[in-house]
Amino acid sequence: MLLSAPKLSISPSSSSSSAAAYSAPLLFPVKKSSIPARNFPSFLHSATSHISLGVPRAASSSSSPSPMIEKETLETHRPHTFLRESDEAAAFSSSSSSSSDSAGSVRARFEKMIRDAQDSVCAAIEAVDNGSKFKEDVWSRPGGGGGISRVLQDGAVWEKAGVNVSVVYGVMPPEAYRAAKPSSDNGDIKPGPIPFFAAGISSVLHPHNPFAPTLHFNYRYFETDAPKDAPGAPRQWWFGGGTDFTPAYIFEEDVKHFHSVQKSACDKFDPSFYPRFKKWCDDYFYIKHRGERRGLGGIFFDDLNDYDQEMLLSFATECANSVIPAYIPIIEKRKDTPYTERNKAWQQLRRGRYVEFNLVYDRGTTFGLKTGGRIESILVSLPLSARWEYDHKPEEGSEEWKLLDACINPKEWL
Amino acid sequence: MLLSAPKLSISPSSSSSSAAAYSAPLLFPVKKSSIPARNFPSFLHSATSHISLGVPRAASSSSSPSPMIEKETLETHRPHTFLRESDEAAAFSSSSSSSSDSAGSVRARFEKMIRDAQDSVCAAIEAVDNGSKFKEDVWSRPGGGGGISRVLQDGAVWEKAGVNVSVVYGVMPPEAYRAAKPSSDNGDIKPGPIPFFAAGISSVLHPHNPFAPTLHFNYRYFETDAPKDAPGAPRQWWFGGGTDFTPAYIFEEDVKHFHSVQKSACDKFDPSFYPRFKKWCDDYFYIKHRGERRGLGGIFFDDLNDYDQEMLLSFATECANSVIPAYIPIIEKRKDTPYTERNKAWQQLRRGRYVEFNLVYDRGTTFGLKTGGRIESILVSLPLSARWEYDHKPEEGSEEWKLLDACINPKEWL
Repeated sequence: MLLSAPKLSISPSSSSSSAAAYSAPLLFPVKKSSIPARNFPSFLHSATSHISLGVPRAASSSSSPSPMIEKETLETHRPHTFLRESDEAAAFSSSSSSSSDSAGSVRARFEKMIRDAQDSVCAAIEAVDNGSKFKEDVWSRPGGGGGISRVLQDGAVWEKAGVNVSVVYGVMPPEAYRAAKPSSDNGDIKPGPIPFFAAGISSVLHPHNPFAPTLHFNYRYFETDAPKDAPGAPRQWWFGGGTDFTPAYIFEEDVKHFHSVQKSACDKFDPSFYPRFKKWCDDYFYIKHRGERRGLGGIFFDDLNDYDQEMLLSFATECANSVIPAYIPIIEKRKDTPYTERNKAWQQLRRGRYVEFNLVYDRGTTFGLKTGGRIESILVSLPLSARWEYDHKPEEGSEEWKLLDACINPKEWL
Repeated sequence: MLLSAPKLSISPSSSSSSAAAYSAPLLFPVKKSSIPARNFPSFLHSATSHISLGVPRAASSSSSPSPMIEKETLETHRPHTFLRESDEAAAFSSSSSSSSDSAGSVRARFEKMIRDAQDSVCAAIEAVDNGSKFKEDVWSRPGGGGGISRVLQDGAVWEKAGVNVSVVYGVMPPEAYRAAKPSSDNGDIKPGPIPFFAAGISSVLHPHNPFAPTLHFNYRYFETDAPKDAPGAPRQWWFGGGTDFTPAYIFEEDVKHFHSVQKSACDKFDPSFYPRFKKWCDDYFYIKHRGERRGLGGIFFDDLNDYDQEMLLSFATECANSVIPAYIPIIEKRKDTPYTERNKAWQQLRRGRYVEFNLVYDRGTTFGLKTGGRIESILVSLPLSARWEYDHKPEEGSEEWKLLDACINPKEWL
């Protein structure tokens, strides 16, 4: 940010971001409030690099206009779909034919998958949290797209749990489209702005008990339309996502359980997936200035399109469906563990690291913040509270030290 | 950050920053610890844009090597100066002559000023904090330069108070030197790396009581040497800094007192200073994604060299000397005010905003984090604890709402 900033980019009005260029056509909801609210699809930023989907990479000059995020409508009911009617028709026609897409378009099936996952994860959390209920915000926009944000705050087990889904129709600059393609096949084509579709689920779950881990997961699907003014230029699609967990203390059986569920989901599709995505996760959630990861990892992948599309849709579905069996048993086991002030203070210090990662490094969060996203949706990933002590160093060999060591030196748990 | 990142900058080893290029020659202290520690002069980042001194602006390509921060020595005693011997000799010779520099070089006098200010501010804080004592870390490096970090944590009045001074001898890339000069006068000169000198004091003081404000101040002086391989290219110098305060509740008499002390310091030198630097402060400490400032401002200036150098040295001295009269009387008045849980929670939410500003926008902090600075010195500016609630909106007309309104719509207090 600093490095590409103009010399005197200290004035709010002058600190525009070019990445906003393609978010201008996106319309997001605005809450009635005396406090300025900006809006952006929530799944595009909470704690993961969703929008890294290829869009912002090429947008690095600083001459573009400020974000223009327009109003959306808060809804009182959840619509059966956030897809545009034309997409729905395509889904229906596809599902009634003998197309290789077995039950509708990938867009439609991915939306259904993330909404089902949102329902089942929220139900599982409410059941464990002594019947607490998520607060839900539903919004849509006239041109299609919308989202459902659900937050449970200060529950019996979780101090903050957010589970959001969003569907976005937007337009990306042509540079981003070219960046997403193999460089050799359209060097001479200069297409205009590229319409894109994106859908995703994103969730961060922070429990109270310092022995119960924080969980994050996010799965997303991205498509571009074929540019109209560049005949022959292909349509792009890709998947991204992951599930990672962040305990403050290591229970080796928990870590093994969590990773083994991730591995099982991966192994159903490709034996190379788990080792590759486990390492990708360790690399992504790296707090460079600390020399440590924010937690004990899991799986992470991005820009995945070099496999069969149906296979990857099934894989993302399997991953999303693995969240409950990977996480809930650990919570059940740890949520009532007695703890001391020292345990709680250590959890709060690790929460500080979580804040550092999300605000400084997470591509989705930093992008969302700088392009005028819906702040409350972006920052629902932050913990309810966090702590920073000067020069805190856990005693060598202590339980706190063991956790830190595993964050500094990622281990193979299986 | 995101916008200029390469597509797959997710691997720690590949996420180097070009800005580090010129920090390589800087040598900083490393503490003995089982946890990797990186080091950087503390005044260069805590909560303000010190290194914005002109250095990083031009360093925007991403092809440079990773930071190479080398070891410094922890000292058991404070040296009488961190200047190189050659600078000391120059200071002595200057002070014994009838030079217009009345008592030694600007380097030497600025170092003395910030060290005196550190002593007096720490003494004032210890006196109010019921005799709590700052923890001190002193470090130096063989080639000259060093620093004194002082932190008081979990005191009677302050939950975290950091007051750091540093002196740095470094080298900046020629692009940065050119950026710091008028563009017309050396278009054809291609100098090599430019040695620079920088010295500064930086402090953030977070009290416990939600009615007692947080204070930040930072004053810094910067000089480049004339480049040896570019005859005629001028030596550069400039001053930067400011004092701003961040209450969670508005006591109008406190705000007026604070601003009037800043104005008095400014008015002794130039009647245009206060209005100009007050606005600069409001613009700089802007949390763009919230549409609000982090606090109620004060004064801020950077790259200041278009006045007499002696005058600016006196002005920076006056500003540093104004910290105690501006702040301590407010603390004395508010430190024991009874408060409720609601007051404390609101303070914690505002602390969350402080964290957001420092980690997302502060030029010094983000630069320091990305170039391998001494993390504990950089992040001493963060509060001991902070809080994020989903979609928190103070009730219109409440005391919390009034503070937020003043952060959204900066006021003229005098």
